[in-house]
Formats: sequence, structure tokens, C-alpha cells
Amino acid sequence: MILKKLSALFIAATLLPFSAVAENPPIRLVIHGGAGTILKQNITPEKEAEYKARLEESLKAGYAILNDGGTSIDAVIASIKVMENSPLFNAGKGAVFTNDGRNELDASIMDGKTLMAGAVAGVTTVKNPIEAAYAVMTKSPHVLMVSKGADQFAAQNGLTQVDPTYFKTDFRWQQLQKAKEKEQIILDHDDNKLAALYIDPMMYDYKFGTVGAVALDRHGNLAAGTSTGGMTNKRYGRVGDSPIIGAGTYANNNSVAVSATGSGEKFIRTSTAFNISSQVRFQNLPLDVASKNALKEVADIDGSGGVIVVDKKGNYAMEFNTAGMYRGTIGTDGKPEIAIYGE
Amino acid sequence: MILKKLSALFIAATLLPFSAVAENPPIRLVIHGGAGTILKQNITPEKEAEYKARLEESLKAGYAILNDGGTSIDAVIASIKVMENSPLFNAGKGAVFTNDGRNELDASIMDGKTLMAGAVAGVTTVKNPIEAAYAVMTKSPHVLMVSKGADQFAAQNGLTQVDPTYFKTDFRWQQLQKAKEKEQIILDHDDNKLAALYIDPMMYDYKFGTVGAVALDRHGNLAAGTSTGGMTNKRYGRVGDSPIIGAGTYANNNSVAVSATGSGEKFIRTSTAFNISSQVRFQNLPLDVASKNALKEVADIDGSGGVIVVDKKGNYAMEFNTAGMYRGTIGTDGKPEIAIYGE
Repeated sequence: MILKKLSALFIAATLLPFSAVAENPPIRLVIHGGAGTILKQNITPEKEAEYKARLEESLKAGYAILNDGGTSIDAVIASIKVMENSPLFNAGKGAVFTNDGRNELDASIMDGKTLMAGAVAGVTTVKNPIEAAYAVMTKSPHVLMVSKGADQFAAQNGLTQVDPTYFKTDFRWQQLQKAKEKEQIILDHDDNKLAALYIDPMMYDYKFGTVGAVALDRHGNLAAGTSTGGMTNKRYGRVGDSPIIGAGTYANNNSVAVSATGSGEKFIRTSTAFNISSQVRFQNLPLDVASKNALKEVADIDGSGGVIVVDKKGNYAMEFNTAGMYRGTIGTDGKPEIAIYGE
Repeated sequence: MILKKLSALFIAATLLPFSAVAENPPIRLVIHGGAGTILKQNITPEKEAEYKARLEESLKAGYAILNDGGTSIDAVIASIKVMENSPLFNAGKGAVFTNDGRNELDASIMDGKTLMAGAVAGVTTVKNPIEAAYAVMTKSPHVLMVSKGADQFAAQNGLTQVDPTYFKTDFRWQQLQKAKEKEQIILDHDDNKLAALYIDPMMYDYKFGTVGAVALDRHGNLAAGTSTGGMTNKRYGRVGDSPIIGAGTYANNNSVAVSATGSGEKFIRTSTAFNISSQVRFQNLPLDVASKNALKEVADIDGSGGVIVVDKKGNYAMEFNTAGMYRGTIGTDGKPEIAIYGE
């Protein structure tokens, strides 16, 4: 039996070109840290260096797992945790504030092999929301848990809890005050009082800051994850696309893994992540073309943002229709590539 | 001006075959009241008659609007409200109970012309959750609001509020007690304590009971809506597919309007509603074939349920992979067709 296997291997080796035998199957990790009006003139060189360092750390954390033969799901979690733990991004520590001065966090994750998925929305005490999403996926038969119930579930499953003040940063607190001032100005001067209650902070903000990761592991399996603090000054338990499987996150080995960032409502209304998956699956489109098509559908209803995509061959795309997107990728060769602005 | 119009009509009348002039553009309404282990031997003739009467009332409510030239969105809301107001269905009054003895309701609605969408999850005091979803769609820039914030938004927008006891029915309360007893039995006898915390009531229940409607109006516009009380004995703020745009509900004039019912998590993981829309759009499949394909993907991950679908020509499908689905349809001729069991 062993001899039979060895001789089969020998035949395969003589038939295949050398490189195909010598190389491992490809691995690929792609990350984003939010898309938006990110312009070089608005960012100091120091701040830019900070962002690049954190994106590189995120890429290396995921790469270490993939390169060791670990799973795409574990790589996605490791990459996202680095960004959640950094105050630079609108996810985990450094999340934006709701209208009533709270940090309400959303996250989701999906395994392209099994189509298992997990998500949480409106959590306030679990340190790493992406871990809560993973717990929902692996330790319950559910996909989405919201608000207090989700926090309770995370706590019961032993995930690190923090006082809600852990997530607070002065920068985000000032953003909330600014948003409220602008809201008051609009309320004072505009007849459309209702519209004023929902100023889109993206209009005033340099970046959105949602984070995400997609990965292909050596076993040929895809995974995707997304984590966010949502919208500054949000009310009424608003939930965006990040915890919505099919909108902000999707992974299926039959096509691609996707994580999205941008004006969440528009991404939900066009099921962005699943749309890209469908276009690749049914139309056999290249990843960048499918991504551009999906973002065009978002733009058609006045939305903007970006997506990262990877397929089973290690092909990938990082597309956005905003000025910039914090982004990076790393493949089999282990060399991180990082970019912030548009071309 | 009037003469000009009349002469144009006269020319059109002479050019077109008689039937095309005499008939208005087609209208179509399709509804469901949940899919599941619905077997004739388990339902008394009296109960069956009650269901049929309520389904017919729902169809006629939506038809009256469509036949008057009203919008598909208004027809969907009217149809769903009839079922929400009836204790027979697991939506609005008659919703199932959570583990802690509450009724937490979810609903969503989508306009296929504008891709506007609205949804609420975990509401407890708004009498008609489908109206709350519509308010989110039309009176906020958001798509999804959850828990207390969603209730607060509905109240501020003048929607009828009720005491949470309004939703309570003895039948559902007994179902919860039965589910808890079975949970205790499993806890006492099974090593897998975690699994025991999530007994799937669908295993014991004769029907799921989520309600939904899809419609085509005379203006050629599609709409879809879904409303549910979720799962008996659910915990941790669990949210199923009903309020998830792309999973339980989707409508786009470029393809179809869809409402789904069944094991919600599996419908989220395969983005059932958007999947059907994509298969019709990209593969040009007939509605019943696209529906069967999507339900096959749900079955592949051990899920079951049903879908209703309508397109711009008035073609429609009512597919399910369970024993039965409460369902009905009404078209241009105004004759309601109602069915409960499989063939």
C-alpha cells in the first residue's frame, strides 16, 4: 500500500513541472482598515507610519498562522484582533460613539468550507467582538445574536470582558461632540428636522475605519471576517452591514471570501458580499470586475466604500470607490504589501 | 390635449391585439404563513378552515390595493398585517416565546424599484412589526434597528404601541413550557449540555409560522416583506433570517421579490432570497428552478423551509422542502388560491 502510494507520487512528480511539486499550495491574506475620504494631505507622516505599522502587524499575525498550515478562520481572527486592539481603527478599542455616548460594536465571521457563520451586533463589554462572532459560530446553532444577549453569551463562553470605558478614545469622543454640534446647526437652520437627526458622519469624517480580513489557507479553504464600531452618533440600535452575512461578510469555497466597508445601509440593500460571490460563481468574472460591478451597484444608490476579496487560487482584489482605503495583502512569499491612498 | 390622448389610445387599440388593450398590466400577490411539518392528520378540519379563512383575508387585503392601482409595498404590508393580527401565525399576536418568557419580534420589507429597505429585530411593544420595518425604511436613512432602540423609533414615529402581553397566547406559552421540559430531559440525560441549551423547537413543532408576502403592482414594481416571532425558547438575543435583507427578504425589479420561512440560520448562511434573485438575474432560470436550487443549498447544510417568489411578468413560485407550507396567491383575475399541504 505504501509502495503503491510512493510510486503514484513518483509518477506525479515526473509528470508535473518541478515548481508544482516543490511548492506548497498558495496562501493569501488580504485586510482592510476602512475606506473613505482618506487623502495624503490630511494625514501627518507620523500618523501614516502608525497606520502602516499596525496593518503590517495585522498581516504578519495572520500570515504566521497560514504559513504554519493553520486555518483561514484562525488567520482572519488573528489579523482582525490586531486592528480591534489598536485605537487607530473604528473597531474594538477606538470605536466611534453612539448618540448617547456608548460604544456598540458589531462583528461577523464565516467559514467558506462549511458555510458556518457567526455574528454579533450592539455588544458593549466583550473585548474582541470578532471572538464573540466566532463563539456564536462554533458554540451555538445560531448565526446572529444582538445587544445584551450577545454580551451575555460571550461572557458565558469565557471571552475576555472589559469595562465599556476600555473602548473609549478622546479622538472618537471629540468626533461625537462635533457631530452633535453639526446636528444642532442643521436643526437650527433646516426645515427638515427629521433628516437632521441622522447626519451622516461619513460626510465629515476622514475615514470610516471598519476592519476586515479574508484568507485562503493551504488546505484550500476560504474565510472572511469584519468588525466595526458602526456610525458616529448612531441612534435607535442601528445596525450596519458588518454583522450581516451576505452584506458585509461572506465566504464560500465555491467562489470567494469577501469583507466590505463603507456606507453600510447601501451594502445591505445590494447584498454586496454575496453579490460578488454570485457574480464570480455564476458569471465566472475576475475578482476585480465582480468587485467593481458590486461597488457600482452601491454607487447607484449613493453609497461608497470598498471590498477585499480572495478566491481558492489565491487571486485577490482590493477595490474601493472612495479616495482611499487602508489595506494590505500578504501571500506565499511572506512579503507584506500595504497601501492607503487611491492611485 | 384630451383629444390627442384619445387618438393615441385609438391608434394603440388598432395596432395591438384586443386582449392587450382590454387588460391592465398584470398584478400578482403571493403569501406564506410558514413552512414545516404540516400534515393533514395533525390538523382538525376546524383549524384548517380557520387558516384558510385568514390566508384568504390576507390575499384579499393585498389584492384590493393592487387592483386599485396601489403599490406592491402597500399590498405587502396590508397582507402581512392580517397575519400579524391573527393568533394563528408566529408573527405579531401569537408569536412564540423566548427562553425568558418574552415575545421578541422581527420583520423586514423591501421595495424592488428603489432598493429601499427597512427591518427591525427584537421589538416588543410595536403592534405591527411590519409597519416598524416600513418606518425604518421611509423615515430613517437606516435599514436595520434592533431591540429597545427599534421600539423607541417606532413609538416616536406614531406607530400603535401595545403592552407586551398583547402578543401572548396560551398555545405559544404551552409550547415554551414543553420546549423547556424537553430541554431539561436532554440536560439530564445527554453529555452534550451545550447542545441541550438549544433545542430546535422546529423538531417538535407542527409548523414554524413566519409570515411573508411578495407582490407585483400595475406599475411593474416588486416588493417583499417578512414578519416573525422567531424560535420558541430562543436565547441571547438570537435573530433569524426574517429581518435580514438578502436572507429572509429581497426585492429588486431587475429580477424578483422573495420572502422565505424556515430554519433561519441556514437561510442566512446561504443568503436564500438574494441567491434566488442572483440565479434569476445571472442565469435566467425560471422562478421555481431558482427556488429549488436555493432550497437545495439550504438542505445541503441540514436546513428546511420554503420561499415565495414573484417577477415583473407576474410569474410566481411557492416552493418548500418541508411537509407543508401555508400559502396562497391571487392575480389579475382576483381569484384566491390557497394551499397548506405538499402534493
